[in-house]
Formats: sequence, C-alpha cells, structure tokens
Amino acid sequence: MQRAHFDKYEGLGNDFIVVDGEGFTKERTVALCDRHFGVGGDGVLRVVRSAAVGDNQPADWFMDYWNADGSVAEMCGNGVRVFVRYLIEQGLARGPEVAVATRAGMRTVRVEPDGLFTVDMGGAAVLGEGHVSVGGRLLTGLAISVGNPHLACVIDEPVEAVDLSDPRLLGPHGLNGGANIEIVRLLGDHEIEMRVHERGSGLTLSCGTGAVAAAVTAATAVGEWPAVQGEWNVQVPGGRLGVTPSATASLLTGPAEIVARGELAVGWAPSPASAGLDTA
Amino acid sequence: MQRAHFDKYEGLGNDFIVVDGEGFTKERTVALCDRHFGVGGDGVLRVVRSAAVGDNQPADWFMDYWNADGSVAEMCGNGVRVFVRYLIEQGLARGPEVAVATRAGMRTVRVEPDGLFTVDMGGAAVLGEGHVSVGGRLLTGLAISVGNPHLACVIDEPVEAVDLSDPRLLGPHGLNGGANIEIVRLLGDHEIEMRVHERGSGLTLSCGTGAVAAAVTAATAVGEWPAVQGEWNVQVPGGRLGVTPSATASLLTGPAEIVARGELAVGWAPSPASAGLDTA
Repeated sequence: MQRAHFDKYEGLGNDFIVVDGEGFTKERTVALCDRHFGVGGDGVLRVVRSAAVGDNQPADWFMDYWNADGSVAEMCGNGVRVFVRYLIEQGLARGPEVAVATRAGMRTVRVEPDGLFTVDMGGAAVLGEGHVSVGGRLLTGLAISVGNPHLACVIDEPVEAVDLSDPRLLGPHGLNGGANIEIVRLLGDHEIEMRVHERGSGLTLSCGTGAVAAAVTAATAVGEWPAVQGEWNVQVPGGRLGVTPSATASLLTGPAEIVARGELAVGWAPSPASAGLDTA
Repeated sequence: MQRAHFDKYEGLGNDFIVVDGEGFTKERTVALCDRHFGVGGDGVLRVVRSAAVGDNQPADWFMDYWNADGSVAEMCGNGVRVFVRYLIEQGLARGPEVAVATRAGMRTVRVEPDGLFTVDMGGAAVLGEGHVSVGGRLLTGLAISVGNPHLACVIDEPVEAVDLSDPRLLGPHGLNGGANIEIVRLLGDHEIEMRVHERGSGLTLSCGTGAVAAAVTAATAVGEWPAVQGEWNVQVPGGRLGVTPSATASLLTGPAEIVARGELAVGWAPSPASAGLDTA
C-alpha cells in the first residue's frame, strides 16, 4: 500500500475524511472510518472528476460520499459544505459559487463573506400532521418532506428535556418507512433550538435536512409558511445553522472546518478486528 | 495557535494521539480526543523528559497519559507499548529494552523479534471468590488484583453469549469499590477468549490488566496457578495478547501500530460545541 494523504474536516461535528477518489475501495472506506483502528469519521468524501464517472451534471467535481459502514449516501448538507471548502483550498475550484455533482443531482454551494457556506437543499413540503412517542410522551408534529421524511414537533420546554433516544413513530401513513424526528423549541424571533434523531443513525450532532424541517415547522407555528420572511437561526447540538426554508429551494448556511491533514502510516491496513464494537 | 504535529497509534483498538508534551493543556487534550470535532482518540500520550517533571525514576522519558475526558491515567498496557514504539521510531530511545517512567512507577518494555512489545504488568494476586449478575445470570468468578481490581468468570459457552453491558457486582467485600469484569472461555491448551467490561469505561476492545486477570483465572481452572507453565494466548475483541501471569511480574505481549501522522490545521481550536454527545 502506498503512502496516502488524507484531510479531516467537520461541519457541526459531522466529520469526514476527504481523499483522492482513485482506487478507493469499500473495505478501505470502512477501515479508514473506524474510530479505533483507523483515522475515524462519519464518512469518506471521495473527490472524483465528474467526467470520470460519466456524470452529465454541469459540474467539474463529483462528491462520491460513502458512509462509515461502507454504504453510499446521496447528499449531505454538512458534507457538501466540507467538500466545497476542500475544493477551494486545494485550488480545484474557485468561489464564491461552486457547483457539485452528487447522487441527488447538482448542488450549488456559495461561500459567504464571513466564511460560512450556503447550500440549496431543495424544496420542502408539509405532508400533514403526525404523532410520535418519545420518552413516554405522545407528541404531535408536522410530517415534512425535504427529499427525505421528517416529523418535527414543537414543544415549550428546553429540547434536552425530551428523551429522544428511542422515538416510536405513530403516523401518518406517509411516513410508514420511518422518519427523522426533530424536537423544536421557539427561542425568539426567527430563532429555534432543535435536537434530532436520524433514521438509521440515532441522535446526531447536526442534520441539514432536519434543520430545514425544523424551520418549516417553526415558520408554520408563527403563520409564516409558505410565505417565509427571512432566515431562521437553528441551534443544533453541534452548533448553529442558518435556514431559509422554502417550498422550492431551501437555503442552509453553516460552517465547514479543517481539523487536520496527514498521511496514513506506511503499511497501515484494515484490521480484521475492526468490526463491530465501538465503545468510545 | 502554532502548527502542531501529531501521531495516531493504536494497540488492539485502544487508540492514542501522541504529542510533544510542551504546553499541552487539559482543554486541548479533551478537544483533540473529541471524535467529531478533533482528531479523536481514547487518550493523549504526552512525551515528556523525566527530568523535566522532576521524576527520579531511572528512565529518560515519562509517559504523561491523559484520558479523553481530561483526567490523568497511571498506566495502560496498550498505551505503554504505543509509547515505546513512538520513542524508537522517533529516535528518542533504542531497543530492544526501553525503560519508561509512568505515574505507576517505572516499566520496562521489550521489543520482540517479531515486532510485538512485551511489558511487565506487575504481580497478580487471587483475593477469593466473587459473584456478578450479568444479563440476568449469576456468575461466580475469581476476584483478582493486578494493581487494579478484577472479577474474572470462566464459562463454557462463547463469551459473546453473555450480555456484559451492565454487570452488577455482588461481592466479595474486597471489590466494594467496583471492579473490571472479565468473561473467559477456555479454547484449548493455554488459549482463551475474553470479553471485558471496564469500570468507568464499559465494554472495551482490550484491557491489559484484564487479560492478565483472565489468564490467572484460566491457569487456576487448569491447576496451574501460581506455578504457571508458559504463556497464555488471550483473544480479546480488539485482537490477540500473549500473557504470562505471575504473582510477581506478569508479562503482557501485544502489538502497537501506527495509524497516521499529520498536522492540526492552522487555527484549529477546541469547539464550544464539542461537549457531551458522541453518537458515532
């Protein structure tokens, strides 16, 4: 195995290893993301020329996003900000607007004057009311599609007061396949806090589509949906996002930070013992 | 903040960030070990000259070991192997025998011809019988001191069959302050498998003193304690250790691997959002 360079980035605590896409296998992705035997991350962002994957989206670069478990992902609001910061810092793209090809279609990311990144997350749609059982309580919320399904519930208490470790969705039928669950509290004018339980991942530090769903719910609560009047500040466990929810093109603004860069040790290889147990 | 170099190593999945000890704060240790906002690790091994800490142990280097939560640790069988590999690779010490000053006193680590590392873990003592409730079952085992307290129980089934997530210690009184719990199965001649629940850490991939306690229990079961006849192979979730248990100087042999080396990003700083939630 040759000496291989990597960069580690994070966006609101969602952390990624960014690598040159050449010859990168699923096995190596899983090993690299292992938090005890590898570098550790939520996923690997492989930087690939769009032309090389036969992609006909009008973007030079394709975000080839692999989850830590070796499955591929379509899109990620935190990941795409990280991806664009990487492209710009490596001199592979020029801001302030960078088009990125993803499995969910092309996304344009804009670098803001304050160094944050804004991405178009697509339209949001309110599907109706839904119910969820969390920590022994029954909550009612709005079922919302942001490409993926959400149930966002507004409460009057601090969002940490709700035990969101094991939510049980009770409907509506439109969410039968499961949904991300957001608990939302209005803090002030266009300001909310949110916790999120992601379908398949559990409690996470941040979820871009979840932040959009939370803002849609809050806007509805104050009679501002779909005629949204300006950006919402969304506090998530990992930090802060700006969201302008929309039925056609929701905008998500947030940070992308470099943590470290380095080289894998010569001879480093996936460990056969790296499966299964993560206790840290 | 200046550009700072780091090395990431692991010993059976117990992973450490090794840094030059100069000016390294508790806050920075916690931030660096954070698995979402930092490099990520179980702890930081700060490399410090013994003379600089006024240590009178006859060793050039002091292993200044900090846990991920910012507390200091006395000794660690996996950490000290990693520490010695680092010293040798950096040209700071020469093998095959390297003395290391630790908070638990001086330890000598030997580099084996096959590249593994052997460390003297000190003497082990059998304190008596004890009981533990695990996954709804009552198990009887041996209470053993390897500097720290253990209860090691031999069973006849695969060790994964026991739900070790929440053991409740029922005695003896000598372990009133809690203990690490080992579930052990004899596989063959001087060969065992083990799972361990570490006091304060939960299920871990490997525990050096736990491997010694497991070997003592197995040796007792086959009538070989304290007159131990050779090394025991101990399979832990993170890999394989060699253990020669002894009432005076138990030897532990295992790997120490480099994962990566790199530099922290310029301007990288601890995130205020990095506390609390680890979901990966």
